[in-house]
Amino acid sequence: MDSIEIRKIFEQALTGEGLDNDLLYLTKKIGARISGSVNAQRAVNWARKRMLEIAPDTVYLQEVAVPHWERGAKEKSFIRTSGQQIAMNVCALGGSIATHGLLHAKVIEVKNWAQLASLSDRELKGKIVFFNRAMDPREIETYQAYLGAVDQRSKGAIEAGKRGAIGVLVRSLTLKEDDVPHTGAVTYDINTKKIPAAAIGIKSANLLSAALAKDPNLIYSLKMECKQLPDEKSYNVIGELRGTTFPNEYVTVGAHLDSWDLGEGAADDGTGVVQVLEVLQTLTNMEKRPERSFRAILYMNEESGAHGAVQYAKEAREKNEMHLAVLESDAGGFTPRGFRVDGSLAVVRQIKKWMEFLVPYKTGEIFPNQRGIDLLPMKELSKALISLECDDQRFFDIHHSLADTYDKLNIREVKLGAASMTSLSYLILKYGL
Amino acid sequence: MDSIEIRKIFEQALTGEGLDNDLLYLTKKIGARISGSVNAQRAVNWARKRMLEIAPDTVYLQEVAVPHWERGAKEKSFIRTSGQQIAMNVCALGGSIATHGLLHAKVIEVKNWAQLASLSDRELKGKIVFFNRAMDPREIETYQAYLGAVDQRSKGAIEAGKRGAIGVLVRSLTLKEDDVPHTGAVTYDINTKKIPAAAIGIKSANLLSAALAKDPNLIYSLKMECKQLPDEKSYNVIGELRGTTFPNEYVTVGAHLDSWDLGEGAADDGTGVVQVLEVLQTLTNMEKRPERSFRAILYMNEESGAHGAVQYAKEAREKNEMHLAVLESDAGGFTPRGFRVDGSLAVVRQIKKWMEFLVPYKTGEIFPNQRGIDLLPMKELSKALISLECDDQRFFDIHHSLADTYDKLNIREVKLGAASMTSLSYLILKYGL
Repeated sequence: MDSIEIRKIFEQALTGEGLDNDLLYLTKKIGARISGSVNAQRAVNWARKRMLEIAPDTVYLQEVAVPHWERGAKEKSFIRTSGQQIAMNVCALGGSIATHGLLHAKVIEVKNWAQLASLSDRELKGKIVFFNRAMDPREIETYQAYLGAVDQRSKGAIEAGKRGAIGVLVRSLTLKEDDVPHTGAVTYDINTKKIPAAAIGIKSANLLSAALAKDPNLIYSLKMECKQLPDEKSYNVIGELRGTTFPNEYVTVGAHLDSWDLGEGAADDGTGVVQVLEVLQTLTNMEKRPERSFRAILYMNEESGAHGAVQYAKEAREKNEMHLAVLESDAGGFTPRGFRVDGSLAVVRQIKKWMEFLVPYKTGEIFPNQRGIDLLPMKELSKALISLECDDQRFFDIHHSLADTYDKLNIREVKLGAASMTSLSYLILKYGL
Repeated sequence: MDSIEIRKIFEQALTGEGLDNDLLYLTKKIGARISGSVNAQRAVNWARKRMLEIAPDTVYLQEVAVPHWERGAKEKSFIRTSGQQIAMNVCALGGSIATHGLLHAKVIEVKNWAQLASLSDRELKGKIVFFNRAMDPREIETYQAYLGAVDQRSKGAIEAGKRGAIGVLVRSLTLKEDDVPHTGAVTYDINTKKIPAAAIGIKSANLLSAALAKDPNLIYSLKMECKQLPDEKSYNVIGELRGTTFPNEYVTVGAHLDSWDLGEGAADDGTGVVQVLEVLQTLTNMEKRPERSFRAILYMNEESGAHGAVQYAKEAREKNEMHLAVLESDAGGFTPRGFRVDGSLAVVRQIKKWMEFLVPYKTGEIFPNQRGIDLLPMKELSKALISLECDDQRFFDIHHSLADTYDKLNIREVKLGAASMTSLSYLILKYGL
């Protein structure tokens, strides 16, 4: 009976030790693993080895070229105002160019695009634009607050660069009132001169804003030595169970193996990685092999372009593979509440029905608008795109920062997420979609 | 409109800073505050001052005599086996008697009552009984796992004492695999000789169990200098808003001001205390005063007998007060999911209906079996007993231990709980029950 099988899945997850050992290894022995780095390659080797130990039918690497950016020496940053020099906590945004020495400039603070548009080119020329719109604490979902502010990071350098600015500072995307800067990808476009882009900690941002109110002509100094190196060869790591009855129908569960270069990549997305291994382990160990084919996929480079996910979709299209559902866990690994599902009405209705099996585990809710970046390239190729939905109050406190470390996690929460994904995969593998 | 009012309640909670300041003060400036202690009195004074600042209609202290137990010097504990001495991490259970010097004895490990019953008095006489039944990790709710193991702490000393044992060790009530001992109240009865009772950390417990398997005659040594002092005069701290239309109908929101003497009493129950202050503040600041009377109650001594709550109920009965609903927050202050409600079918149905207002905030679930210890004395005196229900994966990791500190909390989670309680109080105050 399915409910008994699912009970077993949860009990096995909650009593097992493998997931915790994996997470400790990935965060403490490997640590941060930005795409193109030696550590990213170590993560690939380790994940492949772990999958070989789990021993599904096949384990393989899928080659993909990925960007390779390095932060270099720790950033330096300070303001000079009324004869004082005050340090600012910043970090380069991922992909930023260097400052080539110490950059000095006046600062223009803006909170929105209209405000930027209202400034003349003369006012902006040679300045650093300081994007200081906070995430809105009134949002219940911190992800919504993030969506309301992330445009500053993703297009700030382009919009400021177009107007003649020589650098941008972006208020860190967090609701926690500390001074830890949070990185993330900056975007440049081919038609605009690239300018250095940094994230600034919340306390530093508030201090800078207050200092600007008193002294609009204060001088901001910034030194960043980051650099973009040639692309590197890297890999998605894939483990596969061949379906016994419908081998040409696929269900996948994924997470991203790369992380930012700060912290340990624990919540983003170490938790997802070890959950995927747990799902693969549990399905491999089941007495009865699945009727349909299953793939555990650890994508490379979600953080700066999702190259791994694009490559996976490209090959799936070329091989004309039929994907029933692609799942991803990339929401921090906190207590799961259910799933976000994109698919036809019929597909959503079917999954909603299955959610009844998960209600006893408090993870049976269903929401629209899945959030797995790595799933987007599969939009036309899979009947359902499904992301694990977790309690998100704590995620952006640590997201993309030095604070994303193992000690912030609760291992039972991660295990409950793994069991939820195993259970849903089990049902789709058995009944189709 | 109620939905607009509730939206305001949440926005105010999520943007305010008072709750965080209160929690920092209570945990960092006051800290642990076991009943009868100087710190408990400091907490009373501080809470009264905070309520006077909030300035509802009345603020008063309700006198109550409470137990006063002190841990004394840090416990010492070790085993001697095969010529080795190995330290054990323990802490006295709250209310335990001292060992009066270093107690040495052989150890009998048991996992359940049947096992204890099967042993002869001769086998138990002069021994330390080691209750080593773990909380069951397969439970989804950690509280259920706690309920399945807490009997060892609450009646272990009585059952072992009756059989001639001279001490008990109880496996710490946590699912986290560390070595931090977790205290909590031990119970003695009047007919049985009291024996010293200690909690032992999980790793120490596992080590002891393994050592006993090899050497059943190993000697356990334990020194505890705790003592029971005379009862102290203490207080519940109460703030009251008088209802404009039905002043004789009461709704209360409470939490307990005392904590154990280890850690900072952050999750248990600092979060509840600051939530209660936030509810009082918000209701006091509302443009329209409530139709019914409201009380914010900070109970003294939930942890070793709920003397404050018993006193409150006694006076409520004497004054023949009509309580519509009594609420408590004592579940750690993590992300709220809704409420646990005890009451008539009609009452539960009405509250369930109101939960629709809380669904947008993800805190609109309703469950049976409320869990507020301080509410139990009001069982016959209130139409509804209601406890805030929170995500509980993290609670028992820190519960009653040195690890119950401010840094384990997420302030938005605490704020969401406060807003949930304010909202439900607002509805009951407006419409009755």
